[in-house]
Amino acid sequence: MSTHQPYTFGAGLWLFGQFIDRYATDAYGPPVGLLDAIDRAGQVGDLVALDINFPFDDGVSVADIKAALDRNGLRCHAITPASYSRKYRKGGLTNPDPALRRDCIEMYKAAIPHARELGAKYVKFWPGQDGYDYPFQSDYEDLWNYSVDAVREVAESAPDMQFAIECKFKEPRTHMLFCNVATTLLAIEDMGVDNVGIVMDLGHSFFAKETPSEAVQLAHRRGRLTSVEVNDNWREWDDDMTVGSVHLIETLEFMYTLRKIGWDEVILLDQFPFREDPVQAARESIATLRKLDALVDRLDVETLREAQNNQDALAAQRLVLDLFLG
Amino acid sequence: MSTHQPYTFGAGLWLFGQFIDRYATDAYGPPVGLLDAIDRAGQVGDLVALDINFPFDDGVSVADIKAALDRNGLRCHAITPASYSRKYRKGGLTNPDPALRRDCIEMYKAAIPHARELGAKYVKFWPGQDGYDYPFQSDYEDLWNYSVDAVREVAESAPDMQFAIECKFKEPRTHMLFCNVATTLLAIEDMGVDNVGIVMDLGHSFFAKETPSEAVQLAHRRGRLTSVEVNDNWREWDDDMTVGSVHLIETLEFMYTLRKIGWDEVILLDQFPFREDPVQAARESIATLRKLDALVDRLDVETLREAQNNQDALAAQRLVLDLFLG
Amino acid sequence: MSTHQPYTFGAGLWLFGQFIDRYATDAYGPPVGLLDAIDRAGQVGDLVALDINFPFDDGVSVADIKAALDRNGLRCHAITPASYSRKYRKGGLTNPDPALRRDCIEMYKAAIPHARELGAKYVKFWPGQDGYDYPFQSDYEDLWNYSVDAVREVAESAPDMQFAIECKFKEPRTHMLFCNVATTLLAIEDMGVDNVGIVMDLGHSFFAKETPSEAVQLAHRRGRLTSVEVNDNWREWDDDMTVGSVHLIETLEFMYTLRKIGWDEVILLDQFPFREDPVQAARESIATLRKLDALVDRLDVETLREAQNNQDALAAQRLVLDLFLG
Amino acid sequence: MSTHQPYTFGAGLWLFGQFIDRYATDAYGPPVGLLDAIDRAGQVGDLVALDINFPFDDGVSVADIKAALDRNGLRCHAITPASYSRKYRKGGLTNPDPALRRDCIEMYKAAIPHARELGAKYVKFWPGQDGYDYPFQSDYEDLWNYSVDAVREVAESAPDMQFAIECKFKEPRTHMLFCNVATTLLAIEDMGVDNVGIVMDLGHSFFAKETPSEAVQLAHRRGRLTSVEVNDNWREWDDDMTVGSVHLIETLEFMYTLRKIGWDEVILLDQFPFREDPVQAARESIATLRKLDALVDRLDVETLREAQNNQDALAAQRLVLDLFLG
Repeated sequence: MSTHQPYTFGAGLWLFGQFIDRYATDAYGPPVGLLDAIDRAGQVGDLVALDINFPFDDGVSVADIKAALDRNGLRCHAITPASYSRKYRKGGLTNPDPALRRDCIEMYKAAIPHARELGAKYVKFWPGQDGYDYPFQSDYEDLWNYSVDAVREVAESAPDMQFAIECKFKEPRTHMLFCNVATTLLAIEDMGVDNVGIVMDLGHSFFAKETPSEAVQLAHRRGRLTSVEVNDNWREWDDDMTVGSVHLIETLEFMYTLRKIGWDEVILLDQFPFREDPVQAARESIATLRKLDALVDRLDVETLREAQNNQDALAAQRLVLDLFLG
Repeated sequence: MSTHQPYTFGAGLWLFGQFIDRYATDAYGPPVGLLDAIDRAGQVGDLVALDINFPFDDGVSVADIKAALDRNGLRCHAITPASYSRKYRKGGLTNPDPALRRDCIEMYKAAIPHARELGAKYVKFWPGQDGYDYPFQSDYEDLWNYSVDAVREVAESAPDMQFAIECKFKEPRTHMLFCNVATTLLAIEDMGVDNVGIVMDLGHSFFAKETPSEAVQLAHRRGRLTSVEVNDNWREWDDDMTVGSVHLIETLEFMYTLRKIGWDEVILLDQFPFREDPVQAARESIATLRKLDALVDRLDVETLREAQNNQDALAAQRLVLDLFLG
Repeated sequence: MSTHQPYTFGAGLWLFGQFIDRYATDAYGPPVGLLDAIDRAGQVGDLVALDINFPFDDGVSVADIKAALDRNGLRCHAITPASYSRKYRKGGLTNPDPALRRDCIEMYKAAIPHARELGAKYVKFWPGQDGYDYPFQSDYEDLWNYSVDAVREVAESAPDMQFAIECKFKEPRTHMLFCNVATTLLAIEDMGVDNVGIVMDLGHSFFAKETPSEAVQLAHRRGRLTSVEVNDNWREWDDDMTVGSVHLIETLEFMYTLRKIGWDEVILLDQFPFREDPVQAARESIATLRKLDALVDRLDVETLREAQNNQDALAAQRLVLDLFLG
Repeated sequence: MSTHQPYTFGAGLWLFGQFIDRYATDAYGPPVGLLDAIDRAGQVGDLVALDINFPFDDGVSVADIKAALDRNGLRCHAITPASYSRKYRKGGLTNPDPALRRDCIEMYKAAIPHARELGAKYVKFWPGQDGYDYPFQSDYEDLWNYSVDAVREVAESAPDMQFAIECKFKEPRTHMLFCNVATTLLAIEDMGVDNVGIVMDLGHSFFAKETPSEAVQLAHRRGRLTSVEVNDNWREWDDDMTVGSVHLIETLEFMYTLRKIGWDEVILLDQFPFREDPVQAARESIATLRKLDALVDRLDVETLREAQNNQDALAAQRLVLDLFLG
């Protein structure tokens, strides 16, 4: 494929924080403050941008964050308000308590000036507690309407700011409302606003039973692809593993598709290296992404297109496997 | 819940035909002609409507079909053109060969006058071979465009006729293009026509990782719910088992949701009782559906809505389990 | 089915503790001490036995625990050493560091006298961190040998005590070594000891792709069924939901199978009601279990056996669905 | 890794036959006779051995088969009696009708002299209809006993012949009794015979939720690994795709594991290229296997073992990804 400007890479700041789960309740490592996490991100050496959670740690100002970013050669790419803490355990945007829904909407709005100040490209909605766990637990219409209305209200409050929804099939709820790309595109349509897009997360796509390359093109075709996050998993859960560790061929196809649609923005890592060194985990994923992108350079697209024009699976496979196997 | 006109039931005629798979290549039973299959359907005693495959058996005329339907007290509810036979093994609407795509479109069009003559409510698209099997095998944009253009052309050719797409995640391809309700709604939107809707198949929904009650409301809310088919499976494949045999609670929720959205049309069985008597399998499913619907009558909707308004899973579960467990 | 002594019920004490996950890092509720958790368990009113984690909270003595159990009419049914905290994040029994493996084995051994003092029926192995996450990460032979040797050593150190392995497919590792009943039975065989059995967890069985009724009989047939835990989930993850909330029919089949194999010991709840009241969640599950067991009383076993002798799925289904649907 | 004698390759003869499924009931291609299929296998150019279904086509003698094998430079590696046709649709070894169980056992026995005459290494049990579809349909004890007794009887009838069970999670039944390696090892143990082993099918392992490299070692460790078959799929169904097309990394790990356990026998292809040319599909898989095996040659096993000894996922991944990505 014809060459292009090399991709740049970013990461969710959570990648460098403290991990905990329901078993290792003493956490997989010691606490890490926001500014320390930025310094850790800086150690990767190859990152240029961060997605930073909001609210910030107590006592940490925007100026502190800017300074930490600057000293590490990083910029703020996105702000992700944390609508998934205890307070919102029964939902943020869809909490049954109108006061908590209001509270959550205001928390999102409160993030906007900080996002502006930090030069973020978008404010991200990742409404992890907005969904349901049990059959019959929820009125799906209500959940839909609450979600659509809430995101619309936030988006309309700041027409100059871009917003993006990161859809995910499940976790921490057994079912999330913005469960996959197609459903989220329909919800965005219902919002009737221009400044809401989609964060396409490769790993989420794997376990939503999507074909990631198909899903990312769907979002792109509708002009709603705001950001791209990457990782890998075993297709039943958001294992947040390093890139290409399980689904190498589909990850190559994803990189090919990004090239095809002309993606030229940062690619963000979304990983939870519970038992690994986060800095090293980031480096490994970036190395893999670069090498995959180099394989895309070498991909004989004309031959691939011919195979695809004939739905010739064997020819397409041979072309691709030869890249990996020499 | 307030009572309603009792549901009526129909079936795909394939339920009464010959079943075969890749192992029992001598088939699970003897061949069954189209008219014999209608007579078998008549034996169920409780069916009022059939979805009939097209083209019809050699030598069978519309008049023959009408006569067979009449003598069994049945009507034709839908016509399903068979775009999944050997000829279309690499795709019907999306076949890489333009001549075969054209052929397939014309086959769909040819079904329309027969559908009119038989009084069918809709012509169904179930494009089982339209998808892909391998990574990199297909250009997803092409598949999308071929599919959208083809359905649009057929729909526009007969503005008086209703059409409906039965989405399904996979089989016989490992991936189908119209894979779930949300994606298919987006495709219908791209068609820009009014006379294409969705056939919501409960079993397909289970293994597409949808929550069926959520998906059927999504289609309904957008005015695109044309028909409803039911069965059950183990959530990885279209096992086409009898209704409620695995997912009893979610099937009750689906029946509740049908009531909620005011569904008052026929409910169609889509089953493949490979090793069972098809007439008995139909009777059992209808018996289960009626009993589930009677449970919906007894459901205390006010209490349920209150539980849902509080996202009170335990209260909702207790209400529902008490219906089953006394 | 002929009636029997009513079942008694127990619970893992964690059901009444504090829940946390990787998102709600401020936890789903306030901290709960061990003794407070026992008092909460007592509030259920219908529990008789607890599975208690070890080591106990700092400053809590066996005498304190006994007192708390006594005042709540409870007994200690099992002790579960916590080999899944930060220290063991790369494995307890299989940690690559021999010193940590030794440490973990000694921790298990240290639990034994406490288990004796508390009158526990068994000490449970639930080695949640013993497995692997990535392809190529582990030598599976080593993991197997470490696991087998470690459990054998602990079991041989206390021939008077019963031990039991709770197998689980995954979480917190993406793959656990004792992943399902059949594999664990083979491992127990390799141990060559008599005092190690299996804790059959209904929910774990669902997402290990087992048929629970088949798996529990397999363990029973080999004389290795030590304990039974129950809950429900969506078959991809250990959602630890209330009993019967998703897989009602298979849960009935499980209760029927327990009756068939003559299970007459306590049935333990294993739930994580993140967003629900734990006491109420326990009560609801017990109510469901009792009602399911009452359905088993009413099951016409002779007719069922006849259906099974003919592999007559429709007859078996009708019999069972009639119990639920009247 | 140190080099070895190059692998040789074989195939199930079905790979070159006619494919049919429940939709394309007119089949994906024209009928292919047994002898023609052998000639097709010969066209691959790189096959040395075949697994041949029994009974043979009407009118085809062992001498005919020998001649066809000879002219194509092939040998008969295994005989697979077809216990999955219409007659056995409710089970072969476990059919509820004792006469059909007997009939099936005798059919297996009848295959033995032909297997001897053809020099087959083993007679394969692939009892595809032996399982169940619905909850409550079967008495799992009966199915187990019927299966164990039947295989034992056949095995004891010919102590000079090797037998092997190809386990598979499902299809054509929704659940098969010999569902995975561990369960089948337990069943073989219950048989108490020395001449029954396991056919480890890589694809079956993927969708049984096994880690193939772990499962194949389990069978090997117990001295029960009789044969190895390979292909790929999407982990929910036996898609029988070409090797490495989806799970490239795990297929490499499987090839590494085969080397590690000293596997030096033929590797058999088990594919159903519904829409592809079977000869080409076989060639592509063999090419992939050879290239993967060449990567194993280049694998720095010492460094890998060191990474595994530390459960260092990142180091192991880097080593492996570098083989693929240069």
